[in-house]
Formats: sequence, structure tokens, C-alpha cells
Amino acid sequence: MTQRIDKALIAEENAKLAGFLKEDYEALGNQLARDDINIEDITAKAEQFQIAVPSWGTGTGGTRFARFPGEGEPRNIWEKLEDSAVINDLSQCTERVSPHFPWDKVDDFTELKQTSDSLNLKWDSINSNTFQDQPGQAHSFKYGSLSNTRAESRDLAIQHNLDCIEWGKALGSKTLTVWVGDGSNHPGQQHFQSAFERYLDSMKQIYAGLPSDWELHIEHKMFEPAFYSTIIQDWGSNILAAMELGPQAKSLVDLGHHAPNVNIEMIVSRLIQFKKLGGFHFNDSKYGDDDLDSGSLHPYQQFLIFNELVDAQYRNQEGFGPNYMLDQSHNVTDPIESLMNSAASVQRSYVAALIVDRKKLSGYQQDNDALMASNTLKKAFTTDVSPILEMARFNRGGAIDPIAVYRASGYRAQAGRERPNSGGNGSGIV
Amino acid sequence: MTQRIDKALIAEENAKLAGFLKEDYEALGNQLARDDINIEDITAKAEQFQIAVPSWGTGTGGTRFARFPGEGEPRNIWEKLEDSAVINDLSQCTERVSPHFPWDKVDDFTELKQTSDSLNLKWDSINSNTFQDQPGQAHSFKYGSLSNTRAESRDLAIQHNLDCIEWGKALGSKTLTVWVGDGSNHPGQQHFQSAFERYLDSMKQIYAGLPSDWELHIEHKMFEPAFYSTIIQDWGSNILAAMELGPQAKSLVDLGHHAPNVNIEMIVSRLIQFKKLGGFHFNDSKYGDDDLDSGSLHPYQQFLIFNELVDAQYRNQEGFGPNYMLDQSHNVTDPIESLMNSAASVQRSYVAALIVDRKKLSGYQQDNDALMASNTLKKAFTTDVSPILEMARFNRGGAIDPIAVYRASGYRAQAGRERPNSGGNGSGIV
Amino acid sequence: MTQRIDKALIAEENAKLAGFLKEDYEALGNQLARDDINIEDITAKAEQFQIAVPSWGTGTGGTRFARFPGEGEPRNIWEKLEDSAVINDLSQCTERVSPHFPWDKVDDFTELKQTSDSLNLKWDSINSNTFQDQPGQAHSFKYGSLSNTRAESRDLAIQHNLDCIEWGKALGSKTLTVWVGDGSNHPGQQHFQSAFERYLDSMKQIYAGLPSDWELHIEHKMFEPAFYSTIIQDWGSNILAAMELGPQAKSLVDLGHHAPNVNIEMIVSRLIQFKKLGGFHFNDSKYGDDDLDSGSLHPYQQFLIFNELVDAQYRNQEGFGPNYMLDQSHNVTDPIESLMNSAASVQRSYVAALIVDRKKLSGYQQDNDALMASNTLKKAFTTDVSPILEMARFNRGGAIDPIAVYRASGYRAQAGRERPNSGGNGSGIV
Amino acid sequence: MTQRIDKALIAEENAKLAGFLKEDYEALGNQLARDDINIEDITAKAEQFQIAVPSWGTGTGGTRFARFPGEGEPRNIWEKLEDSAVINDLSQCTERVSPHFPWDKVDDFTELKQTSDSLNLKWDSINSNTFQDQPGQAHSFKYGSLSNTRAESRDLAIQHNLDCIEWGKALGSKTLTVWVGDGSNHPGQQHFQSAFERYLDSMKQIYAGLPSDWELHIEHKMFEPAFYSTIIQDWGSNILAAMELGPQAKSLVDLGHHAPNVNIEMIVSRLIQFKKLGGFHFNDSKYGDDDLDSGSLHPYQQFLIFNELVDAQYRNQEGFGPNYMLDQSHNVTDPIESLMNSAASVQRSYVAALIVDRKKLSGYQQDNDALMASNTLKKAFTTDVSPILEMARFNRGGAIDPIAVYRASGYRAQAGRERPNSGGNGSGIV
Repeated sequence: MTQRIDKALIAEENAKLAGFLKEDYEALGNQLARDDINIEDITAKAEQFQIAVPSWGTGTGGTRFARFPGEGEPRNIWEKLEDSAVINDLSQCTERVSPHFPWDKVDDFTELKQTSDSLNLKWDSINSNTFQDQPGQAHSFKYGSLSNTRAESRDLAIQHNLDCIEWGKALGSKTLTVWVGDGSNHPGQQHFQSAFERYLDSMKQIYAGLPSDWELHIEHKMFEPAFYSTIIQDWGSNILAAMELGPQAKSLVDLGHHAPNVNIEMIVSRLIQFKKLGGFHFNDSKYGDDDLDSGSLHPYQQFLIFNELVDAQYRNQEGFGPNYMLDQSHNVTDPIESLMNSAASVQRSYVAALIVDRKKLSGYQQDNDALMASNTLKKAFTTDVSPILEMARFNRGGAIDPIAVYRASGYRAQAGRERPNSGGNGSGIV
Repeated sequence: MTQRIDKALIAEENAKLAGFLKEDYEALGNQLARDDINIEDITAKAEQFQIAVPSWGTGTGGTRFARFPGEGEPRNIWEKLEDSAVINDLSQCTERVSPHFPWDKVDDFTELKQTSDSLNLKWDSINSNTFQDQPGQAHSFKYGSLSNTRAESRDLAIQHNLDCIEWGKALGSKTLTVWVGDGSNHPGQQHFQSAFERYLDSMKQIYAGLPSDWELHIEHKMFEPAFYSTIIQDWGSNILAAMELGPQAKSLVDLGHHAPNVNIEMIVSRLIQFKKLGGFHFNDSKYGDDDLDSGSLHPYQQFLIFNELVDAQYRNQEGFGPNYMLDQSHNVTDPIESLMNSAASVQRSYVAALIVDRKKLSGYQQDNDALMASNTLKKAFTTDVSPILEMARFNRGGAIDPIAVYRASGYRAQAGRERPNSGGNGSGIV
Repeated sequence: MTQRIDKALIAEENAKLAGFLKEDYEALGNQLARDDINIEDITAKAEQFQIAVPSWGTGTGGTRFARFPGEGEPRNIWEKLEDSAVINDLSQCTERVSPHFPWDKVDDFTELKQTSDSLNLKWDSINSNTFQDQPGQAHSFKYGSLSNTRAESRDLAIQHNLDCIEWGKALGSKTLTVWVGDGSNHPGQQHFQSAFERYLDSMKQIYAGLPSDWELHIEHKMFEPAFYSTIIQDWGSNILAAMELGPQAKSLVDLGHHAPNVNIEMIVSRLIQFKKLGGFHFNDSKYGDDDLDSGSLHPYQQFLIFNELVDAQYRNQEGFGPNYMLDQSHNVTDPIESLMNSAASVQRSYVAALIVDRKKLSGYQQDNDALMASNTLKKAFTTDVSPILEMARFNRGGAIDPIAVYRASGYRAQAGRERPNSGGNGSGIV
Repeated sequence: MTQRIDKALIAEENAKLAGFLKEDYEALGNQLARDDINIEDITAKAEQFQIAVPSWGTGTGGTRFARFPGEGEPRNIWEKLEDSAVINDLSQCTERVSPHFPWDKVDDFTELKQTSDSLNLKWDSINSNTFQDQPGQAHSFKYGSLSNTRAESRDLAIQHNLDCIEWGKALGSKTLTVWVGDGSNHPGQQHFQSAFERYLDSMKQIYAGLPSDWELHIEHKMFEPAFYSTIIQDWGSNILAAMELGPQAKSLVDLGHHAPNVNIEMIVSRLIQFKKLGGFHFNDSKYGDDDLDSGSLHPYQQFLIFNELVDAQYRNQEGFGPNYMLDQSHNVTDPIESLMNSAASVQRSYVAALIVDRKKLSGYQQDNDALMASNTLKKAFTTDVSPILEMARFNRGGAIDPIAVYRASGYRAQAGRERPNSGGNGSGIV
């Protein structure tokens, strides 16, 4: 296993753009200086920003109708790590990988840890999976996992989560993320309260197995795979469950898991206020859990979320420190490209939120000057902070233009040659 | 002030239908008996069912675009009581009226109580109003009431709620319902967390003024009049606020105040489980807070909500006992007709939920027999319980067919003659 | 291949219920007679009602996350036909089957036709499939089929549809239904107008291959599998395409393919008015294209759709005669049970719409008596027409209670024994 | 009546910012030049961009719950024109005003035209109003206007629209915009097809009165004021009506009038393709017809709409030339400020769309390179074109920072003094 993108190529491609970058960076620096913002401070913060990539995101996604495989898809966690290393080499803000079990289960976790170390990658939150039956599974999750009416299925789901914690310890992770698809497709199928009580009982057993320096993140979702009711359907059920479990339990926000029209940035604020914001699954969506590239449709919403996050930092809000992760399904793009692009998109929102004039904003809020408050946010959002993002990558040894370098590298074609029989079945489920 | 519908007319109209009612009631009784349901037990429960009418619902509603006044609209709380008496005389399930202050404020509350007593009407939850400025108001609610950045406006809003409690005591009410339109129309206009903290501080002062046998009901709403963010935007913020305040604070569910596609019956279940279900504002809606007649569009959803409520009764769920109220805007119908019709529609959902075979349902749920669980609910829903509703009214001295009797009475035309200059301005706000 | 449910069993089970049915039918007949409705006329119409089942609906559905196979799933079109025969034997309103190609493609269509004849089944609309790549397919549909930028992919998709027509001719079908998932996941990915022009060009070639007594039905869908834009995203694009193609092209309505809150019954009315209503895919949904059992969530909406359909019949609307079909995904129920149940649910809506007093309704509409117009529909809807549905089945030799007979028959267990290795892969796509 | 903002003040304020503008404009010019874009060409196009303001938008808006009047609101069309002149003086892209009748009806339209001429203002599309009853109106629009079941109400609505055309001729307008709130609140209230037929009949009479160089614009809206069905509920009904009427009839898109999640830019494309795009009402919204400031919530959506519009120009699409207008409700801001800000926001979207590299975009689309196609749009969107907007205003004699100059001018306080008794009633309708 090797560094897959030649550093010389990065340097060569950067050299083509460095002059323009210097010019644009200076112009932006001058512009920001008028508002007493030191561009170097912002760039330094941009360099420290990190967002995890999901191991499964390096493969091509699909829908129940079909999956159209891409060239050279990774066939296992080792190859997913290779792709993740490429993403981080170029992007320089994705040094953590979030695994999904049992998909990424290996016989020797020590070997896996050594491999990730050698690639300068760390492990983010562990994702358990009780929404599928594994081959030979003794008790099915067809009618639920942690909330199943049958103790046998619940116990299996609990044990899997406890296993995940063990595997995570071996990898140096500190967080377990629990998303379950449990729910119902018919009114009456499930007794809402009993099911939620069973869920809470199961989660308490998982929580009891949590090391003292770990967090347990609960993920809510409105619908899919259940189409009438879902056990943790919104942030309300999520935070109540987290409060029942204890201080190590927090809520995780996936941007695509809400009802239409919901104000997500306000939910983020509420979770911050009640010390229960655990982390994010970033993506974008128009209809449901579309899992599109982050910021590709609603960049201003993504900025407004970061406006809340940066504001919490600014106020030194107690107990604040969420995990950031991408969670996307790449159906029509090269996953490596989408992940690099999306990481930069999220980073852009962060940087733009950093240059909001919070003192002025606070004054406008106090005076109910709605228009100037809105314009204060908009000014930061419309400022083109691309030079800061590019300089942050450049300073850390990454690519000014990650997509261009990646395409120039021929990595995908090489993967196509080195990974025969990848891709699998193209037929979905209707 | 008199009994407005002649009892002789009711008797006369009932006589026309009593034969058919007896026939249908017997047939239904036989049908229910096959499942060991005694129709008389159900009818007895139907007779005890009560749902409050909103004082303001007796007038014609409107939109920001226009209001088209109806004939003989009530011009004050005295006339609203007259109309409410008519509704209850015929429907026999609306013996309580929910007032709205300052709209229904009078100089002498003792006189108002005596009048309602004489009409056999009681007073339900008190509704405060801090979403409008009253003539001569010292500090505006334009930028919020309980969460306003200015203490003067907050204090005014707090005091109004404390006044409402006093007026409510005089009328024998036991509940204060607080809905505020506070929120924002622009990103940045409001600091979400600070605004919510101010709201909670204000609510704590109101809660402190609550008699020990009262409840404080918090009403959430997704949007309108604020169109970007609303302070209590959903049941999540609602229950957190209620938990912060204490055991006398509970959450109130208005069916039209949720995001599209949200599973409202599940929210009802969650509130029951956490002992925080305070009450309901019943209405129906397709798009937003449309305030249409209850059950006119989504009768099965209304039934499913009552399925949760009757289930909680059946399980003797601790702390369960919500208030039921209609909250509708009658833009194109006679408000008296809509309120009678809607009360019966809600009562229908209650009665249908009573005949659900809960033992069988529980078995199907335990066995994950989704189809039979669904069919068990559907069987109750498709059973035409009209004869039970009619018999319940008939037994209590009401009308078998309230609309027909009301129309035969000429009440509306009489009101048109006796209430000159009612109706007011027809132009809305654009 | 044999008659799978013993007629003696049907007779035996019916005998248990016939007495109650007679009693309930008489009571309902008396009740309807008061409004001058002859129950026998309605029952006769109920007996004539037919709705097709989708061949693929006899297997267990799934989501991109997982598919949990059921016992004894059909492994090919021959076994799907067996299951369809069972459904029709018991339900007596599903004598047509709608095939899906290439899934149901066989070497000898004459043999397939003989088999369906022997089971008393006919063939409904042919469904083409260009949303998946088939093994060895020369040109991919990953970036679209009929609207693909590459002529090779478009030609393949066109030819497949022309093949479908040929296969349909062999089966005696008269309709081709075209649904494509073509669209985009990113703003900019597709040039909207060019893509629609390519789609129309492709469709014109298919239309040109249509026999003169066939119809071409276009199906719109808001989203999924494409999550930013879809080529035929709504009824607007649908009817414009149908108008461009010619009189044999019509629009097909799938109830789950619309934006939230949309008034579907109004769309049905518009399509009727412009002579472009081709047919329906019936199902129910709460969030997206959930493909739940018809009428299981929104029975009143389903009734309101049939109110439009029966009204068009009543008015002898020119060019009216849509195809009815179920299109559901059965993830947690026995597909045979769900299809029988759903067919009866749709039939219930039809029968309830038949007993609407259209003369009175029209009068109320003319007089703007909104409340009585609403109540006129509600009266029909709340009338429990179960006895009519049961009698219609009974009269035709079906089961009074199809689910009970089916369960008593042991058919599913037998299928489990006779169909080894059915079910396939349980892992979805994330 | 005078030029309300002193030109010296504008010059003085501009002088403070001119140095920074020059610096930023040069930097941006250099940046654009790398992609062979001449910034002067773009600025020239920006200077030509015009968007109309709605006369009613200069007053404070409200909701059915309340209206909180602002200081110095205009009391009549003369004062609305004064405010509009201020907006255009500073913004330099709002030289047209769109009137609303009968609100803006005057005795002497010649005088009104002379006044607008003297203010350098022109008249945009005429808006008729048949969603309210006017004092003394002989036949009510309570149950509809152009689609009312009663000929008397329809005739009144038709005549009002014909009057609007006459008044518009006097003012030099060339377009009539027809929006009606006709619809229903109850299933059954209205016969959908009959109502649509009546609507079309009425519209044909209006169309017949249209001068040959006028256009008739039809505006669709999903809901409000009608909450079950609306006669022109979406673009489908809209374009069908426009096609029925003839070539002078076109469809108008209000951004807030669609179902949740709908892809509006695709609807725009469809209307362009079928030569039926008449114009726009720009605003922003999160929930319904919120009428918020344009681009304040979804700036990327606004850009994507202009991407379609600029693309149509670029392709010289036949019959293309829509009207642009703001249509907003300013509930918590100074309307003059919101209108200036919003005009600039729309202009920003236009300018950003101008710098999209359409040749590259087309290549990526042809190659199905979704990521680079998306990035091509994003690159234009993230470019901060503020210097171009500022320079365009500066070149035309407007303000570099319109809000700052306006606030410095003291115009609002002066209006407060000169317009006593403005504001009207603060109580909404519940």
C-alpha cells in the first residue's frame, strides 16, 4: 500500500495556480482587513478544520431501483482506506474515517489500525448496523432490532452494538453512532409507547457498556426504511432518549432526515442549548434522505448551521464539541471526487461563518434591525472565501484544486485495473 | 337572553328520524354484539364525551387577503355565548367554552359567569393573546412578546398572562393556554438560544402565578405569523419548555401546526408517555394552519389520534387527561353549523376508537402481524357509528340531526335581525 | 399447475359468515333504500369492478437499506401467475395481471398466454424497464435512458419499449406504461430543455410503433431514483408530453408520486377534463413513493379520487375509461394478503362513491352550501359498505373473508415447500 | 413632490466607498479576465437589468393574526410613488411600478401618469383584485370571482379586469396579471371541472378585451386563501389555461406559490420551452406564500432560476422575454429598505448567472460529468459579484450602499411627520 497520489504531481499542479492564488488571497486579505479581520487567523482555523469521511461513501451508492457501479470501486475496508488516504492527501481536512460494522469488520483489528496509521488516518465514530440481516443471522431484524417485540432479536442487536464498541476501542474511536430503521409501515402495526420503551431498555444496556470517555450518538430520521412510523423520528424523540440515557448520550443531526420545510439550524441551536449536540452527518437533499453532496443544493442553509456552531464556539458554550462527518450516496459521480468536493463545501461554510461580524450582529438582534442582521450574515456568505480554502490546503501540502490533481493522477483508472470484480450487482429492489 | 332553539322543534324533528334511528341502532347493536361489545356501554361513553368550543370560532374567520363576514355574527362575548348555547343544545357535547383575552374581556366577570351558568355552559382553558398590539398599548409585540429583546414588552406580555389567570379564576377555569407567534422572518434576526432563554424566563414568571390546581398548556406551531423561525416551533421545543417549567406545565397539540408529513399520532403517544399531554386544538388542514373543520379532510388521522387516547385510558396511563377543544376558522360556512358538525366528527373518532378490539390488536402487534393489526383498526374505523352518536344526542335531549334542526329554527336569520352592524371590515391584509 | 385454493374450503368458510352477511346486507339495503338506492344495483356494479395486480407485487419488496425475503416467494412469472390466481379466486376483482419486462420475459409467450388463460387471468398494461442495466447491456442507463445524451443508450431504451409492445401483443394487452427514472442529482448536471426534447423524440419513436388500438401511458414521479430533477416530474410535464405525442398517449397517476400536500383528486379531474387520464397505480404513502397498501393511511383521499371517477362516469365524460392497477411494495406483509386487502380497499372507495347523492351534491355546489356538500360526500364515505363488498365476492364465488380463507388454506406454507431458494439477497444498497 | 434623496448626499456617501469599490472591482476584473470574461460587459448588462416594485409593497404587510404598522407608511398611490422613486433613485434598477386595482385607482389617470413621469417611473403589469369584496359591492366574491357559480359575481369580476386594462392603457402598461383566490375549503364544495370551465369562460372574455400588444399573465398558487383546492393550483393548470386562451396568455411564476420541495427552476425551463413564461413575482419563502425578501433564504435557488433565464437568452430562445417583479410582504422591516435590498439580491442572481461558463457547462452536460457541471454553476455563484452591482449603481448615479444612504437621509422620519394617520388598523383576523 502506497501514497497513491504523487507529491510531485501535487506540487506541479499547485505551481500552475499559485500565482493566481497569491493574488486573490491578497485581495481578499485587504478586503477583510477593512473589517479588522486578519486573513491569516482565518486561514489558520481553516487548516485545523476536520470532517470525517464515511468508509461506505467511497463506493458507488444506489437506490432501491438500481445501483450503477463505478470503475474500480473498493472491495473491502483496506481499499476504502486507500481511497480515503487519497481524499485526505488532496483535501487535507479529512484525516478521520468512520467505519460501518459488520461491513468493515476484519479478523485482525490491530492490522487495520496499523494500516490506517501508516496512511495518517484516524478513526471517527463507529456505525453499527441493525437494519439488515446478515447471512445466517439467527433472529431477523425484519420487524425491528433494538425495539423488536422479540427479546432474541433485541439481544442480537444489543450485542452487535457492544461488539462495535470493542472494535472501536481497538481502532481508537471514542464514539458509537446508533441509527436504527425500526418502525412500522401500517397504522396499528406497532404500539408506539411499548416500542419506544423497548428501544430505551435496549439502549440502556448499550450505554452501560460504554467506556467512560466515549459518547453514544443517537441519529433520528423521519422515514425510510419504515414508511408509517419510525422509532426515533425527529429531534424530539432523539433528545428525550438522550436525556433518559445520561450525559454520555447525545443527538446526531443528519441534514436529510427531517420533515419538509423544517428549520434545521434552529434544531441545532436547541441541541447546543441543552448540551446534547453530538455530531453531524453532512449531506444535502431536496425531497427525503437524498444523500446528495453537501452544500450542492442549499449552501446557505449549510452556512446558517455553521453560523450556530461558530456562535457556540464564540460564546464558549458549555459542553459543545460536535463530531463532523460526511454521509452521502454517490450515485452518478466518482465518490472520491464527491467526498473531496463536499469536504471543501462544508469547510467553506465554516470559514464563512468565522468572518461574520458577531458583535454587529448581536447589536442588530438586540435592536430588532432584521434587515441589517440578515445582511450581516449575507455579507459573510457572499464573500468568496475560496482563496482561504485553497491556501489552507496549500499550506498543509494538499492540492489547491483537488479535483484537477486527482484527475491528472489517473488514480481511478489504476484502481479499475487493480480491483477486478468490484461493483457487484446492479439490480436494485422494487 | 333565552334558550334559542325551541325544545319542541327539536322533539318534532327528532320524531321524524327516531324510527330509522331505532332500526339502525339495533342493527349496529347486533353487529357489535358479535364481538362482545355492548352498544349501550359505548353510547354511555359517547354521552359523556365533551369538547370545548372556542369563543372566537362563532364568528366568521378569514385570511390576510380578505374576510367575508357572515350574517348575524356575534359582536361580543355575550352573543358568542348565545351561539355556544345553541351549539350545545343541539350537539350535547360542547358544554364548555374557551375564551380569548383581551377579546372576551368584560368589566364584570361575575355577570359573565352568571350568564354562562344560566346557559348551562362552563369555561374551558383561557387563551391569552400577545400576538397583536391592542389600541394604546405602551410597548409593541411587533418583535415578540414573551421573548422580546426589550424587557418592557416582555413584562407587558407576562402581566397579560397573569391577568388571564385572574379572569379565568373568576370563570372557574383551570387552565391557561399560551400560544405566542414570537419568531423571526430573516436569518440572523433573532439569536435562537437567547430568545428561547428569554421565553423560558418569562414563562417561569407566569408559571409562578399559576394556582396549584391549574395547568399551563404550551402550544407549538411551525410557522405563521413568523416565517423563518418560531420560538416553540414543534413538540420538541414544547416538551423541553414544559419540562423546564414543572409538572403543571404540559404541551398542547394543534393538528394544523406541524411540518408536512409528520406523524401526529406518534407525537401524541410520546407526550402521553412522558406525562406531558395537556390538550388538543382540533381542526383539519392540508397545507398549513388551515383551521378547517375537524375530520373534514383526514378522518382516519383523527381516528388514529383517538386510538392513542383511548389506548392510554385503557392502560390507565398515569397523568393522562387532556383537554379537548375545537380551534377552527370558518370562512365559508355558518360557524354554528361547522362547530356542531366538527364536534360530532371528533366524537365519531372517539367512539370508533372505543370499539377497537385492543386485546386482539395487542396480540397482532406482539406477533408482528402488520396486516391484521391494520385491519383491526380499519374495522373499527369503517364501522358506521352514526347511530351511536345520534342516540347519544337523543338520550341527552339534543338533536338527532343538529344541522337540520338548526336550519329549521331560523336562528341565523333571527341573529341577522338582532345583531345589526356585525361583521366589521371585509378587507384583509396583503 | 392447479387451482390453489380448494373451492370447498371457500364454501366452508363462507358458510360460517353467510348468516351475518345476510343480516348486515339487509340492514344496509333498508338504510340505502331510504335514499332511493337499490343495494342490488350497487352490488352488481361492485361485482363488475376490476383492478389489476402487478406481477412484481407478489414478491416481497424492500428499500435501498435492506430486503427481508418472505416465505415461498415466486421465483418467476409462472409462480407469480399462480399467486395472482389465488388472489383473484378469493377477491374476485383482480382478473388482470400487469407484467414488467424484462423481469417477466419468457422464451415462449404463447405458453405464457395459455397458462394465464387456464388460470382465468388476463394481461393488463405492459411495464417497460429502463431504470436498470441488465447483465451484459451494451450501453448503460446510468445517466438516463430515453433522455440520455448518448444516442446508443436512447436507442436501446426505445427498442426495449418496442419489444414490450410485441410481447404485449402476444399476451393480449392493449397498453404500454412508460416510467423512466431519468433525471439528475446535481444542479447543472442536465440541461432541462434539451433532456426533455430528447425524451420527446424517443417517445415519438415508441408512439409510432403503437398499434392503433393501444394506448401509451406516461407515468410521472417527483423524485427517486433521481434526487434533484426528474424528466417527467409532475402531471404538468406529463400532460404536455401526452399532448405532444397524440391522442393515444395519456397520463397515468401513481398516488405516491406527488409533492407533499398536493391535491391529487384535482389533478385527476384536470386529466379527465382534458381527456388525458390513462390510468392509475394505486397505493398509499405518507412521505414519498412509500408504496404502502392502498387506502391504509388515507382512505378518504382514495374515496375522493373515486368521487371524481364515478362523477365522470355519471356525466358520461367523453374519452373516459382509465385502467386501474395496484402498485405496492410489501415489505412486512404477505404480498398475497396485501394485494387482496388492497383490491378490496380500492373497491370500497368505488362503491362508496357510487352511493353519493350526486343530484343533491350538485345542488349544494350550485348554492355554495359548502357544509352540506361536504356532508353529502361524508355520508357516503361513513356508510359501511362492507356487506356489499362481501356479497359481491360471495356472488362471484369468492371468499366473504379472503384473508381468513387464505390463512386457513395453508397456501403460503405450501409455497415455502414448493419454491426452494426463493428470496434472494437480503442486503440493500446504502 | 420632490426628489426625496439629495443627490449631494448620495455623492457624499459614495465618496466614502469609491476607493474600496475601485480596488475590489479591479481585483474581480482580473479574476474574471482569467476566464475571458470582460467585467465591463457584465457591468453594462447589470446596469440594464430592471425589476418592478409592487405598489402595495411600500406599505407594511401582515398576517391574518396581526399587522404592526410602520412609521410613515404611504396612504395612497401618490405616496407609494414617492417611495418607489426613492427606491429607484438609490437602487437604479427599479424604474417600473406595478399597480394593484382598485387599491391604486384614482379619478384622474392622466395626472397619475404625469406624476410617475416626473419621478422617472414607468408602469409595469396591472394587478386586478377579485379576492376581496369592495365596500358596497353588489355581488360577493366570498365563493369565488371568475369561477363563481353565479353569473352576477363572474360578470363583476370580468368587468373589473376589463376596467384594469383601460386604466393600464392610460398608464402605458402592456400586461394584465390575473391572480384569483377562487377555490374551496371542503371536499365537495366545488365541482372541479365545472369551476375550471367557468374560469376559462370568464378568462376568454377578458382575453377578448386585451389590446393586441398586451399580454395576459396567469398566476398560479397552491393554497391560500382557499385551503382545500385552488382553481389555478399549479403550473399545470396554469399552462393549460394559457394554451386554451391563446398566444397572448402566458404563465407567471411566484416563487412562493408551489408545493414543498418542488423544483421551480425546472418549471421555469418547461414554461420557456413551451413559450409560455410570462413573468415572475420574486420573493422567498420557507413554508408557504411567506413573501419574504428575495434571496434571503434560498439564494442558490434564485441563482438557478436565473441560470435558466440567462441560458434562454444565450440560446436566443424564441418568444422569451419575461417580466420581473418583486412581490413581498414586509412585516418587520422598512419596506423601502427591503425592496432596495431585494432588487439588488435578484440583480445579483442575474449577474452571477451571466458569468457561468456556458460552453464548458454544455460540455460537462454532454459528457454526464455531473460534478464538474455542478461546480461550474457553483463557481459562478460563489464568485462575489458585489463590486459589479455596486459599480452598476454608481455608474447610473445611484448609491454604492443604498441602505446606508437611505438611513443617512432621514427619509423615513420625514415621512412619519408628513403622513399623519397612516398605518391603519393593527388587528388581524383569526
